[in-house]
Amino acid sequence: MKALVYHGPKTIALEDRPKPTIIEETDAIVRITITTICGTDLHILRGDAPTITDGRILGHEGVGIVEETGASVTGFSKGDKVLISLISSCGRCSLCRKGVFSHCSYGGWLLGNSIDGTQAEYVRIPFADTGLYLLPPEVDDEAAVMLSCVLPTGLECGALSGKVEPGETVAIVGAGPVGLAALLTVQLYSPAAIVLVDSDDNRLEVARSLGATQIINSLKGNTVERVMEMTNNAGVDVAIEAVGIPETFDICQAIIAPGGHLRQIIIS
Amino acid sequence: MKALVYHGPKTIALEDRPKPTIIEETDAIVRITITTICGTDLHILRGDAPTITDGRILGHEGVGIVEETGASVTGFSKGDKVLISLISSCGRCSLCRKGVFSHCSYGGWLLGNSIDGTQAEYVRIPFADTGLYLLPPEVDDEAAVMLSCVLPTGLECGALSGKVEPGETVAIVGAGPVGLAALLTVQLYSPAAIVLVDSDDNRLEVARSLGATQIINSLKGNTVERVMEMTNNAGVDVAIEAVGIPETFDICQAIIAPGGHLRQIIIS
Amino acid sequence: MKALVYHGPKTIALEDRPKPTIIEETDAIVRITITTICGTDLHILRGDAPTITDGRILGHEGVGIVEETGASVTGFSKGDKVLISLISSCGRCSLCRKGVFSHCSYGGWLLGNSIDGTQAEYVRIPFADTGLYLLPPEVDDEAAVMLSCVLPTGLECGALSGKVEPGETVAIVGAGPVGLAALLTVQLYSPAAIVLVDSDDNRLEVARSLGATQIINSLKGNTVERVMEMTNNAGVDVAIEAVGIPETFDICQAIIAPGGHLRQIIIS
Amino acid sequence: MKALVYHGPKTIALEDRPKPTIIEETDAIVRITITTICGTDLHILRGDAPTITDGRILGHEGVGIVEETGASVTGFSKGDKVLISLISSCGRCSLCRKGVFSHCSYGGWLLGNSIDGTQAEYVRIPFADTGLYLLPPEVDDEAAVMLSCVLPTGLECGALSGKVEPGETVAIVGAGPVGLAALLTVQLYSPAAIVLVDSDDNRLEVARSLGATQIINSLKGNTVERVMEMTNNAGVDVAIEAVGIPETFDICQAIIAPGGHLRQIIIS
Repeated sequence: MKALVYHGPKTIALEDRPKPTIIEETDAIVRITITTICGTDLHILRGDAPTITDGRILGHEGVGIVEETGASVTGFSKGDKVLISLISSCGRCSLCRKGVFSHCSYGGWLLGNSIDGTQAEYVRIPFADTGLYLLPPEVDDEAAVMLSCVLPTGLECGALSGKVEPGETVAIVGAGPVGLAALLTVQLYSPAAIVLVDSDDNRLEVARSLGATQIINSLKGNTVERVMEMTNNAGVDVAIEAVGIPETFDICQAIIAPGGHLRQIIIS
Repeated sequence: MKALVYHGPKTIALEDRPKPTIIEETDAIVRITITTICGTDLHILRGDAPTITDGRILGHEGVGIVEETGASVTGFSKGDKVLISLISSCGRCSLCRKGVFSHCSYGGWLLGNSIDGTQAEYVRIPFADTGLYLLPPEVDDEAAVMLSCVLPTGLECGALSGKVEPGETVAIVGAGPVGLAALLTVQLYSPAAIVLVDSDDNRLEVARSLGATQIINSLKGNTVERVMEMTNNAGVDVAIEAVGIPETFDICQAIIAPGGHLRQIIIS
Repeated sequence: MKALVYHGPKTIALEDRPKPTIIEETDAIVRITITTICGTDLHILRGDAPTITDGRILGHEGVGIVEETGASVTGFSKGDKVLISLISSCGRCSLCRKGVFSHCSYGGWLLGNSIDGTQAEYVRIPFADTGLYLLPPEVDDEAAVMLSCVLPTGLECGALSGKVEPGETVAIVGAGPVGLAALLTVQLYSPAAIVLVDSDDNRLEVARSLGATQIINSLKGNTVERVMEMTNNAGVDVAIEAVGIPETFDICQAIIAPGGHLRQIIIS
Repeated sequence: MKALVYHGPKTIALEDRPKPTIIEETDAIVRITITTICGTDLHILRGDAPTITDGRILGHEGVGIVEETGASVTGFSKGDKVLISLISSCGRCSLCRKGVFSHCSYGGWLLGNSIDGTQAEYVRIPFADTGLYLLPPEVDDEAAVMLSCVLPTGLECGALSGKVEPGETVAIVGAGPVGLAALLTVQLYSPAAIVLVDSDDNRLEVARSLGATQIINSLKGNTVERVMEMTNNAGVDVAIEAVGIPETFDICQAIIAPGGHLRQIIIS
């Protein structure tokens, strides 16, 4: 099969690789119909992920069709359309029992990291019963693949971690994919105002079209003053940092209201 | 092997039954070294549990030694000393993922209910990796078996559900095994006062020896007045009902402070 | 001034009464521009509220204009347009410090209960700094008065107490004012489906227009079966009882999912 | 009266100052029977608190006897023995209503900061009803004054913020007054083990006498390795930083378990 293979910093290649096979009874093999590229993949290419070894197939996001299931997989069958979770979790270790699936003692972020990933025609999914989600056949693949990583990141690290409540004021600093995912998902909790801060007018216009009530181009300076003015000097109830540099973290520290929640999603 | 078998209301018998064997790869067979009798077993004997069929081996509590494990059990080996949980849980269904293990779609309360239980020389434990807990060899069996059911019930349905906080005042109505388990476990959260109410002076003396700061014999009447007096008419922050009849629930309703938590553990 | 005065069960009269005056320095006098009638007022008229004495001016909801403020009121001035909260709270007692304002040791539900209420041309508001909310002049009075009692009841006792989360399924049994207030406010938390149950088709149509995704007329029988069918036998994540009789509570008990939240708002 | 007066960095003097008088009706005047020195006072002396102006009486901790109360104070009378809270709060602003008393719009940390403090024979307490706590006459002054600042800091910023739960493992880095206050207060939640880390053997011995189950002198190196060894490489469930320098924060980051809570109490 065709696969995108990592060969060290700045070196990737589309290669022929053997199709994966079931190793554990809890595995499934999925034929990928769509995959995508995460900001994390760009970090890997820059050489920021020393644990990823030469020869690894990259990718941890994808939608596909179940091709084969291990003997103990009960929730999925050949032919099912599925969403692939970036997180593999055994469901049995103490961290899974506490709901900390991303730090599963036998799982966590495996795909495209310590085992071969989704940027290939087929992928082996460990712990398939908890690593796949059944999709209705009519769901659009391009929409669904956003649920593998970016939207859960916006929801869990942004809206949920930041404890957004109805009527609150939210600032999101950074209108890249993760900041926009936070923008979409904080709206599930009905904040009264959402301010997006970025240095790119095009991204800010996208943010506006996706629900931002105010936008600020940080290149024009005095971002902090403008946010404080918008909030009658109260500051924002929730500040979400989605860039990952000290300057944007400082903005968040300067605009957060007393008793508010500041959350950093990205570390560059 | 010897086993205690249910044959309908008020009819149980100690009988010879075949030793259980592994059915699923996630099973373990445990040789029971100690088991005990739950209040629920008394309900079963009274005929209050119509789902339990003729021929069922009773019992959902126990300590034992692992005799055999299914192929996919990874956390336990033959010879391990283990505590048996009354709850079986698959770790993979949506309710397990939410932490509601007692309502697992494939598990829940199975032992001594829909499958044979622990009041026998051997028992088959489904989902052994999540249904057993490793015990150090030196732990006393009689102490450990209290962790199968009664202490978790006191902790989860009493202390945790009632949200006991340091410095609070707690009333526990009923000093039977469940009330005493609540008494022991609420102390993990350092309440300032714990009032035990019961109609039996002997039980109340046990309660006092286990940490009750005040005791009230309800046969002497005016229980509500005495609790209100003890609390300067503020009422108690947490009221735990551990009898299961309307009269004791009414006491809890009458003594709970505004903003307090009332929890009923037992339904008779 | 004109006022609606209670003279015992089934006996009210529109009478001339002296205009109220400042008693405590924390009081304000408000000229009422709109008030309304609560289901609680109907209970009072039926004689269900023995604490309300002959001669009491009824009413705990209202919008108005501040006429006069006591010496220690800092947040409001003559001429301010204000919303009146049904709850008076001192902000200093231990229950206020814990956020249990409705049980304030010196307040709680006072208006139209233990002191004269809002169904009059003027009303004295105790603890004005915490009992009034500033309204922009352009806000519609008829909309704003819904914030005195019914919408907070729907929000706090329904959506918040029931812990509605995005994607969940909610059932609301009862499409009267409180049930509809719950319907409006649960939508702040983005549930995936909201089923309204009532015996009146007109109310159900209103519910549909306000956001109910499914409606069930309970007169047609088998309400429980229909809800379970809608949820693929999973039951609903949140069930909100807004009628106050055993039959509707039983429906809620029958349709609630394992791990779900059942909340009763009304006690008839 | 005698008072300790700040005159700029490294300059304090015991001086005669006029006895304070009631300014607002919500004030009380308290005769100080005991006060103490906070680490914050040391910061002030080093010049780290530019908001504190020349002539300010220092101190925000104290126990005393009520001398006089303003007209609207309802909870205290002349002669009452009281504990002074370091936080003044109006109980009426939106931050007080949310329970964020330390950021009260009209209060917060005032004593010994923006108004004269407790290191004097008398002090004026604003918002006396929420800024004082009644003490039984028999309570020891030296014990009680620990409740003004250091024990609440250990409890709120350590135990509560770190969400310590029964059976968990806690590390506290720093055995100064705040670290020891955290040590005392985390025990209210019954952790299974508490490791104290400091560079001073005397402080560590005090920690052991106050409940630490393990102690580590960080001067001996390999602190992280020793904590990880103690926890079978799981790390600690809660890490509390009570020194305020990058090195000790780094220790906390290195020893925290997945899903654990790291809290920093002190910023030096």
